[in-house]
Amino acid sequence: MDGLPPLVDHHCHGVVRYAPDPGTFAGFLTEADRPPAAGTSYFDTQTGFAVRRWCPPLLDLPAHCPPERYLARRRELGPNATARRLLSATGIGVYLVDTGLPGDLTGPAETAEAGGGTGREVVRLEALADRTAAGYRGAGTADAAEEFADALARAVRAAADTAVAFKSVAAYRHGLALDPRPPGPDAVRTAARDWLAAGAPRLADPVLLRHLIWLAVATGRPLQLHTGFGDPDLRLDHADPTLLTDLVRATADTGTDLVLLHCYPYHRQAAYLAGVFPHVHADVGLTLTHVGPRAPAVLAEFLELAPFGKLLFSTDAYGLPELYVVGSALFRTALGEVLGAWTASGAWSAADARRVAGMLAAGNARRVYGLDGGDGEEARR
Amino acid sequence: MDGLPPLVDHHCHGVVRYAPDPGTFAGFLTEADRPPAAGTSYFDTQTGFAVRRWCPPLLDLPAHCPPERYLARRRELGPNATARRLLSATGIGVYLVDTGLPGDLTGPAETAEAGGGTGREVVRLEALADRTAAGYRGAGTADAAEEFADALARAVRAAADTAVAFKSVAAYRHGLALDPRPPGPDAVRTAARDWLAAGAPRLADPVLLRHLIWLAVATGRPLQLHTGFGDPDLRLDHADPTLLTDLVRATADTGTDLVLLHCYPYHRQAAYLAGVFPHVHADVGLTLTHVGPRAPAVLAEFLELAPFGKLLFSTDAYGLPELYVVGSALFRTALGEVLGAWTASGAWSAADARRVAGMLAAGNARRVYGLDGGDGEEARR
Amino acid sequence: MDGLPPLVDHHCHGVVRYAPDPGTFAGFLTEADRPPAAGTSYFDTQTGFAVRRWCPPLLDLPAHCPPERYLARRRELGPNATARRLLSATGIGVYLVDTGLPGDLTGPAETAEAGGGTGREVVRLEALADRTAAGYRGAGTADAAEEFADALARAVRAAADTAVAFKSVAAYRHGLALDPRPPGPDAVRTAARDWLAAGAPRLADPVLLRHLIWLAVATGRPLQLHTGFGDPDLRLDHADPTLLTDLVRATADTGTDLVLLHCYPYHRQAAYLAGVFPHVHADVGLTLTHVGPRAPAVLAEFLELAPFGKLLFSTDAYGLPELYVVGSALFRTALGEVLGAWTASGAWSAADARRVAGMLAAGNARRVYGLDGGDGEEARR
Repeated sequence: MDGLPPLVDHHCHGVVRYAPDPGTFAGFLTEADRPPAAGTSYFDTQTGFAVRRWCPPLLDLPAHCPPERYLARRRELGPNATARRLLSATGIGVYLVDTGLPGDLTGPAETAEAGGGTGREVVRLEALADRTAAGYRGAGTADAAEEFADALARAVRAAADTAVAFKSVAAYRHGLALDPRPPGPDAVRTAARDWLAAGAPRLADPVLLRHLIWLAVATGRPLQLHTGFGDPDLRLDHADPTLLTDLVRATADTGTDLVLLHCYPYHRQAAYLAGVFPHVHADVGLTLTHVGPRAPAVLAEFLELAPFGKLLFSTDAYGLPELYVVGSALFRTALGEVLGAWTASGAWSAADARRVAGMLAAGNARRVYGLDGGDGEEARR
Repeated sequence: MDGLPPLVDHHCHGVVRYAPDPGTFAGFLTEADRPPAAGTSYFDTQTGFAVRRWCPPLLDLPAHCPPERYLARRRELGPNATARRLLSATGIGVYLVDTGLPGDLTGPAETAEAGGGTGREVVRLEALADRTAAGYRGAGTADAAEEFADALARAVRAAADTAVAFKSVAAYRHGLALDPRPPGPDAVRTAARDWLAAGAPRLADPVLLRHLIWLAVATGRPLQLHTGFGDPDLRLDHADPTLLTDLVRATADTGTDLVLLHCYPYHRQAAYLAGVFPHVHADVGLTLTHVGPRAPAVLAEFLELAPFGKLLFSTDAYGLPELYVVGSALFRTALGEVLGAWTASGAWSAADARRVAGMLAAGNARRVYGLDGGDGEEARR
Repeated sequence: MDGLPPLVDHHCHGVVRYAPDPGTFAGFLTEADRPPAAGTSYFDTQTGFAVRRWCPPLLDLPAHCPPERYLARRRELGPNATARRLLSATGIGVYLVDTGLPGDLTGPAETAEAGGGTGREVVRLEALADRTAAGYRGAGTADAAEEFADALARAVRAAADTAVAFKSVAAYRHGLALDPRPPGPDAVRTAARDWLAAGAPRLADPVLLRHLIWLAVATGRPLQLHTGFGDPDLRLDHADPTLLTDLVRATADTGTDLVLLHCYPYHRQAAYLAGVFPHVHADVGLTLTHVGPRAPAVLAEFLELAPFGKLLFSTDAYGLPELYVVGSALFRTALGEVLGAWTASGAWSAADARRVAGMLAAGNARRVYGLDGGDGEEARR
């Protein structure tokens, strides 16, 4: 779609600083966490084909060239030049980077700099809890639990001073069928004591997951929630965003916005929630990247019930700068195709289509995250 | 689609008798029950855009004119002339009006008269229970409960004499995962006593909701069941029509037809139920109105598994005559587009397409509701 | 789609050896198990229209001729000549026949011979248990249960020597929300004793259903699992393949492949599972046959998340040779339409499209079922 403002990628991750070997590269194309089935390749997916469509020309190769040739050219250029070439072709102006993923990844400023944009941090709540627990790991006393709980509350408040938003991956750790009420202080302390005493393993305790959500909600910063598909660490049916309905109701009067990420294949359900709850938004990230030429169809499904002021763009790119290219290219072309068809049929006016395209590409995210001033740092850069 | 018979709108509501202010008007475009998020408007939805596409020309304005201009013209004409202009452009010949919604709304005859058609009443079971409870409110005795239960059974039987169908909104009050069995008399009396003693608040008791369904089924009149999306008073995942499967099985030999309303985003599931249970039907109402230019895609999804004799047209219009215009226009154009494409590709014959179009537009509803004589009053008008 | 290799229909059933009367014929067009609703016909479905589109020309009649004329011509030719004409027009080269359905049906070799291909057997686990139980029916002793359990284990191992795969219909008998663990020997013996003592009725005991699954998994033969829609003997929401997630995880390291059959309307969920678990595959059978001109749309939805090496073709044809024609014709045309559009837009290269088409049509099934030698008999024919 032509004439879009610089995109706001409201949910993404850094890129690897190293040159990935072929297996590592292919692993970033899939949500699977195991090698591919014998006789198959993760390049033989819509994501793999989309990378081969959009990226080789940016590295002076023909579209759809074989993976081997592409990877050889990539090695030739090195990771920095590759990232710079790819990221600068995305049309993304603002990167809101979830820093909670492991790996030798670029941070918000570094990612944005490579693409010629500005970056802000999204703080992953579970990672913040892990970091906060470092000093209390193995301590099973009530005092340690109390101290940890205080430290955690301070850490969330401190993060809100600089971060643009929070993110919860409760979908991975417990599923979204959470008790919607904020847990009381006693419940939090008991859960914290048990978790710390166990050595603070991967946080999956539903009381602590809920507590993190409510701590974040209290800050007023938008809260991003993973919903829908992801790696096999989650159970897909436990990530249906309708399971959040009671939590959505419970937070309706807090003044804090919720942003449902990914959503697929429950994106119509997510769009419904965005349609009937003013503080709920939804996001096409990860989804468009994984469905390739089906991006227009899936975007159109989002746009059935989602009010046009409630749908946000993101790539959810992770590790490979290629995924920023694919996510933004698929978004632009899908938006152009879908709104173009609606305009051509007379269903929408051309003026409305331009206006809505700008909202989805950047305007909605600017409003939700306060990027145009007021409480946002981005505007001061 | 050309050559359709007058449509039978088998599920709709009255229109407001007053001139709605802009906020009230916009509120009818959404299922939300709160003001829109700051910086957004309910006109920025597929329903809002569809109203701006189809309605301004009927009031001598250009399509897609700004909402303000449209509302000004509407005020100029006044509510009666507006309703007359809009309703007479829908192609609807028969209006089956659910009278259970609140507000200063036109009744079946008045609605139909404005559109040049005939009207019949659909009785909402929960509203009938509320009216019947009026004389017993606050009475917590076994005798009052017994009297109420008798009065309720008489009220349902009496309604069946004149109403064309019943409707249940158990999806809103409890969700569709209801015990499929008719509750016994003791259970009904106990539940009634408790409900009346509590002052007969909004009816959400699952025993009484089931009892209403079974009272309705016993009359032989078709029973419309809300399924799928609606206002946030329901939980979407509790309105999946597959949750009705056991009730569907339990009613399979009663001779009473069930009609699943709306269904979205579970419309493929609803179509499946209509495909394998002879007494189950499904409906595109509300859904097409809310998805705008996606109406052909969603109608096509309904038509994957739904036998062509089992899918019914409705608008589910409520409050605004504009919603009748949008619901019928989207249905006609979607039907024309979908069946036209299937005919053009050779998948369907043109003769079959014409025949099926007539079934969906009117024939199926005429058969299910007995509108062509026999037990129907409509035919006598 | 042109240039496809002979198709491998990896899941189908035999055809009836007799000339079906019109009601019986129509009954094979639907998953319903009751006569159609008054005033409707099972010919008025996408399956009915698809049969009338594709089959009459193969019997020297015009496409879309009335059902009566088609059935008259069919009687004139007789069941053998009809089957021969129809099956030889399918392009199917290999038939993997689930022999567990009742009726006077052709077996694998006979079915394949009529179509000019080769046939292999898929053994339905629940039918195997029924046959094994024959000698123990009514016996309620621990000894009989032990003997039966031993006989069942032997029967599964013996079947694995000749069968190409196993199939479970646990979705029909219990639903897919099964405890994922293999039941212990005591639990199996107790369940077997109770089942035999009750006369070995239709097998619905979850312990025995799980036990069958794990016996099959232990053989290393691929295990086909019914998921998604089917006849009303199942509850659709209990057949959502995501309910299998824990079983999928539990079998991830066994080396045995799982193939999710049908999947609709949860095919995006099935594609997700195929995407993140190397041993999981999915299948378009039954689904394409039932959605007629929507086959391209539904196939495209499968191809959003399903890796291209994980999706398999089948017809799931049963009873009527017409269903082989429809299933294969819809697959070919849908594949051509979908991949053709993606190639035309530049999203895919033509070479990739040809390669992926061959994988879906035959290559994936040949790999999963070992049809190209090694442990397969088919290669020796």
